[in-house]
Amino acid sequence: MALSLICPTKYSEPWVDAMMAVDPSLDLRIWPEDGNRAEVKFALVWAQPTGIFSEYPNLQVIASMGAGVDNLLQDPSIPVHVPVVRMVDPTLVRQMGDYVLAATLNHGRQFPDYMQQQQWQPLAPRNVDRITVGVMGVGQIGMSVAKRLRAVGFQVLGWSRRPKTLADIRVLVGQQQLSDFLAASEILVCLLPLTPETENILNAQTLGQLPKGAYVVNVARGNHMVEADLLALINNNHLAGACLDVFRQEPLPQGHPFWSHPKIVVTPHIASLTDPTSVATQIVENYRRMLAGEPLLNQVDKQRGY
Amino acid sequence: MALSLICPTKYSEPWVDAMMAVDPSLDLRIWPEDGNRAEVKFALVWAQPTGIFSEYPNLQVIASMGAGVDNLLQDPSIPVHVPVVRMVDPTLVRQMGDYVLAATLNHGRQFPDYMQQQQWQPLAPRNVDRITVGVMGVGQIGMSVAKRLRAVGFQVLGWSRRPKTLADIRVLVGQQQLSDFLAASEILVCLLPLTPETENILNAQTLGQLPKGAYVVNVARGNHMVEADLLALINNNHLAGACLDVFRQEPLPQGHPFWSHPKIVVTPHIASLTDPTSVATQIVENYRRMLAGEPLLNQVDKQRGY
Repeated sequence: MALSLICPTKYSEPWVDAMMAVDPSLDLRIWPEDGNRAEVKFALVWAQPTGIFSEYPNLQVIASMGAGVDNLLQDPSIPVHVPVVRMVDPTLVRQMGDYVLAATLNHGRQFPDYMQQQQWQPLAPRNVDRITVGVMGVGQIGMSVAKRLRAVGFQVLGWSRRPKTLADIRVLVGQQQLSDFLAASEILVCLLPLTPETENILNAQTLGQLPKGAYVVNVARGNHMVEADLLALINNNHLAGACLDVFRQEPLPQGHPFWSHPKIVVTPHIASLTDPTSVATQIVENYRRMLAGEPLLNQVDKQRGY
Repeated sequence: MALSLICPTKYSEPWVDAMMAVDPSLDLRIWPEDGNRAEVKFALVWAQPTGIFSEYPNLQVIASMGAGVDNLLQDPSIPVHVPVVRMVDPTLVRQMGDYVLAATLNHGRQFPDYMQQQQWQPLAPRNVDRITVGVMGVGQIGMSVAKRLRAVGFQVLGWSRRPKTLADIRVLVGQQQLSDFLAASEILVCLLPLTPETENILNAQTLGQLPKGAYVVNVARGNHMVEADLLALINNNHLAGACLDVFRQEPLPQGHPFWSHPKIVVTPHIASLTDPTSVATQIVENYRRMLAGEPLLNQVDKQRGY
């Protein structure tokens, strides 16, 4: 009755330390040296080699080490009957909010412009409380970010696939209200899950509906964005600029036009990171629930994709 | 019974429009074409020519067009018996908070560093809720800024000349607690009034007591800062950098080392501006109080200097 940590691109040590601190009796193994794979019931995974799950005949739960499961769900070796869970990490949610607040206030108070111009030339100021931020995706992370933007003083509008009720924040719904949402968003923040429906959702057609001078913050996934379309709209001055943490190819290749663009702020996928000590309890609890046959925490709807 | 607007460096038109909208019956004149100065009872001033008040024999109130009265009070022609009032502008207070939140989150989330390095190299992140911001000066503006920093998640410490009580925020007091305050401030925000006591208060001796890697935000007055001392402490890596909106000489001269310094963000004294439409009611109300012999709003203690 073992757990295996399958994370070729992450350091496993902090995860092992955090989980063993919660339950020292765990039989926790680290791929690829995880012994007899028939004994593994619970896999904790990030960027696993595609197809790997076929080597684990008795798997009962697959737990993503992050909040987004878009990559994980593409693996055809996930058995149909095995549930996938994801991390819901208050530390990650808070970090994401801090990043989005920094990026939006930064733009609102024109810091990137001042840092570029390097001369004493006051720009026409805009009060933050007169700027509308549109938050695409109001799941657990997006909802928290929307509330914090509102608390800081921005006008905030949400957009969601399904109707949501949020005190103080209007949420527009679905394809039929997308145009209204875009037309009102002077800063657009993408916090959508990546699914076949949302892939390439930030493109010439949608970004072109943002008001002239709008600003784009993408902290979700690089594949939400058609990068050439964003560039064209910034270069023809329809958009004022962008702050991007995620890219179609990561690391963003040297020589990519985003790096040197004066109106684009690039950060290396650091907006929020899952903190092992913050989520260890949740992992161990799901392991316990699996053993007890109880409903799991944060189970993903595989059909929906998040 | 007239008011005169004495503001050689500001456009008077928005002020006239805003005040006449509040009370169209005002006899509002604009220096230097303000007619018979013996008729002027109320002067609304910014950057007045020194000595000008001796030309107004019947002055009863001098109103600063801004929140800071440090320049104004240096004019020896202010009659001893004439009260000075200043603007308390909620729009200005909000703008200042927006700026300080942007500057502190910016540093907390390492945006200036990422904008400099232009390569895919994640830096060790710091959670905003583990960063202590020290706010020097917790008057009307400083108190509001401190509360907003706390609301966003920072740890916040205040420093004040006199004891202050602020829910959730500890305020250290006076010279004897200054060292403790500085030693705890990982980001230092200066919002002090400029007085003989606070001039040059940000110097090698005080800034040197900030913890290694601390960051400095000055949004008060340029004369609070000994600029060479700040530069030396950044250049020897004791301080991580600074975000500065005010300078000893404004406009900051071309060629000043702050302009090109990779660790210093310069903005051209735009953190907050008094909005005439936001304060017109308060000016006209003080004029009415003067006529009625009632206590004035926002009267300055000339001795104390704010």
